[in-house]
Amino acid sequence: MMVSRRAAALTAHAPAIAAAHLRVERDPYDPQRNPGGYLNLGTAENRLVWDLLADKVTAARNIEPRDVRYGPLHGSPQLRAATSRLLSKTWHAKVDPDHLVVVSGASAALDIVASVLCDPGEAIVVAAPYYSALDVLLTGRSGARLIPAPLSGATGFSLDARAVERAIDQARKDGVTVRAVAITSPCNPTGNVHSLAALRDVLAVAERHDLDVIADEIYANSVFGDEPFVSVLDPRLRGGNRVHVIWGFAKDFGLSGLKVGVLHTEHPEVLEAATALAYFAPVSTDTQALLTNLLADHEWVDGFLKENRARLADSYRNAAACLAEQGIPHVRPGAGFTVWTDLSRWLGEGTENQLWHRVLDEARVNLIPGTAFGSPAPGWFRLCHTTDPGHVHEALRRVGGLS
Amino acid sequence: MMVSRRAAALTAHAPAIAAAHLRVERDPYDPQRNPGGYLNLGTAENRLVWDLLADKVTAARNIEPRDVRYGPLHGSPQLRAATSRLLSKTWHAKVDPDHLVVVSGASAALDIVASVLCDPGEAIVVAAPYYSALDVLLTGRSGARLIPAPLSGATGFSLDARAVERAIDQARKDGVTVRAVAITSPCNPTGNVHSLAALRDVLAVAERHDLDVIADEIYANSVFGDEPFVSVLDPRLRGGNRVHVIWGFAKDFGLSGLKVGVLHTEHPEVLEAATALAYFAPVSTDTQALLTNLLADHEWVDGFLKENRARLADSYRNAAACLAEQGIPHVRPGAGFTVWTDLSRWLGEGTENQLWHRVLDEARVNLIPGTAFGSPAPGWFRLCHTTDPGHVHEALRRVGGLS
Repeated sequence: MMVSRRAAALTAHAPAIAAAHLRVERDPYDPQRNPGGYLNLGTAENRLVWDLLADKVTAARNIEPRDVRYGPLHGSPQLRAATSRLLSKTWHAKVDPDHLVVVSGASAALDIVASVLCDPGEAIVVAAPYYSALDVLLTGRSGARLIPAPLSGATGFSLDARAVERAIDQARKDGVTVRAVAITSPCNPTGNVHSLAALRDVLAVAERHDLDVIADEIYANSVFGDEPFVSVLDPRLRGGNRVHVIWGFAKDFGLSGLKVGVLHTEHPEVLEAATALAYFAPVSTDTQALLTNLLADHEWVDGFLKENRARLADSYRNAAACLAEQGIPHVRPGAGFTVWTDLSRWLGEGTENQLWHRVLDEARVNLIPGTAFGSPAPGWFRLCHTTDPGHVHEALRRVGGLS
Repeated sequence: MMVSRRAAALTAHAPAIAAAHLRVERDPYDPQRNPGGYLNLGTAENRLVWDLLADKVTAARNIEPRDVRYGPLHGSPQLRAATSRLLSKTWHAKVDPDHLVVVSGASAALDIVASVLCDPGEAIVVAAPYYSALDVLLTGRSGARLIPAPLSGATGFSLDARAVERAIDQARKDGVTVRAVAITSPCNPTGNVHSLAALRDVLAVAERHDLDVIADEIYANSVFGDEPFVSVLDPRLRGGNRVHVIWGFAKDFGLSGLKVGVLHTEHPEVLEAATALAYFAPVSTDTQALLTNLLADHEWVDGFLKENRARLADSYRNAAACLAEQGIPHVRPGAGFTVWTDLSRWLGEGTENQLWHRVLDEARVNLIPGTAFGSPAPGWFRLCHTTDPGHVHEALRRVGGLS
């Protein structure tokens, strides 16, 4: 064996979806130049807001010598202060900059919190369907394992503390040490915005079982539906210091390439350990200066977030109309970039994996199959709509035309 | 226990030097305003070149939408291509961009290569004195252990394959599985530039013992002495694909805050695993675009690196004169930002740790004690000279005045 066991396990992981993504990106659809090309509705990326960002991102930079020198590796005081102001509004909770650990991506923040909480072999129960990359992020370096808590399709896969508790109980019966409960809030892939009551119940279950809570709230400012966003840090919930939250600039600011994520924790030991681990995944001080400057313009931030929500709502409405046109059911999302789409009528006698290949090879559309999200029921796919509306229309026309 | 065993071990690590650093930064020396303040010669940072960089770093950015979207997480094709051109010159070897993994700091690259090569408990033999952070970087996440191979003070701590082989033999006798040999080249802290013959001997030892080689060449373009830099990838060495090299923009370009490091490996499995691990420590596409643009100006790069070498030589000459003035011996460096300084005449009956505290508390100078570098002999300190020459003079005046 040339590489460590851990490295070998990591590289063995899920190459099929990544390979599909590469294939799709090499032959992209264009209505004029390449009408038979692939349509990529797989990547959860917000392509609706570049015009709002361009001036800020391309402008000359107010960089000082200190901005290219070593800084605190868990984020500059300036960026943590600016981010705490934003998140205080988002979370309706007072956020102390010293409780924030800034690292190179929400992905890194997820890895860090899992590595801090779990020794190898310990488990994190996660409400399913869940963000597909959690499989790698929460386990790949930490050595932890994920145990899905399947939510019910009958209620639109809404968050249900009883499902979470059942998974905890079952894991313990199986002799597994459960260490934490993880949720995405709002939910990726479904776009469900969790109610105060549902969150309260989940926190209560975690507390009853002496577990930490990991909440990925990266879409917190991308809520466009009727249900208002409630953070797990909402003061009404009194979650305590074993509730750890992840946020980042990828989704709410459409700056996915910048790979800037934040972990918020009030637990002193978790904070200290996460700060130590940030050493291995720091953010460029150059990009930190850009984001500090962006957040300093409060009026711009408010306008941007409002306009982004309006555009997300429009984008979803277009997708919903296209889905209706093809008679394809979906879960009505209140947030995010994606629609959880029920293609089970095309399953027939086959598997979801076979259907995925038909969608990819025949319709030439890249959707991510539910399997990747730990979906409790076969035939569901995640469709990302935050791109050219014409592409979404063409993609669903093709999918609807499958035999 | 609130955090994982691994996280607890990481946070238990070496707080003394970090605490000293913080203390020093809070009360900095200024000849007029704070003549009794602390002088920080602890941080290996190049403060001599900001005037050369400022225009490039502060200019308006040529950022496209794709530069803020998800890119390959092991570095954009553009930055890897530009870096491969630079490193081909630096290393006198053809560098394939596809053999480069770009991550958030040379620190992260060191962690990644150790995690790829070593299962927990396996060992890396490292020529000592060595870069102090290797203690954390090569072991903190990988679970590997470091075994120092002490070099001899009688030869100015020059690289010696026999010392490396003795450490390998001893470790094996002790029942430890050795997986790799690590060197810093040029050496941090001594500034020694290793000869072709010395490197050939080390590679031969590694090959004979079936070990990989990790070479941290982050000072490759910061060579100012008579001995020319030779990379472990020099074609004359025919090192094979088990030789892995780390480089970054922190030292040679004075851009330490940007935290951009590179791992070069030709080994397919190591490359694949390192690429997978890069997922957890990517670099902002924004900063990648900046560096791609910087490297595209070949004439500027050549001029910058030449001027940097000249300034480093001047800076060292000043430090050497100040050391001579105080009668303090040192190893004559051929590269880097630091001087390996022999303060053993102040040891008396005490320990190096006691002397360190006298230097810090009485002289109010921050030097890093040899212990941190796995120094084979007590009383050696690393002095970083790449700052205001007046500060270096004042610091050595104070140290020389210790009773």
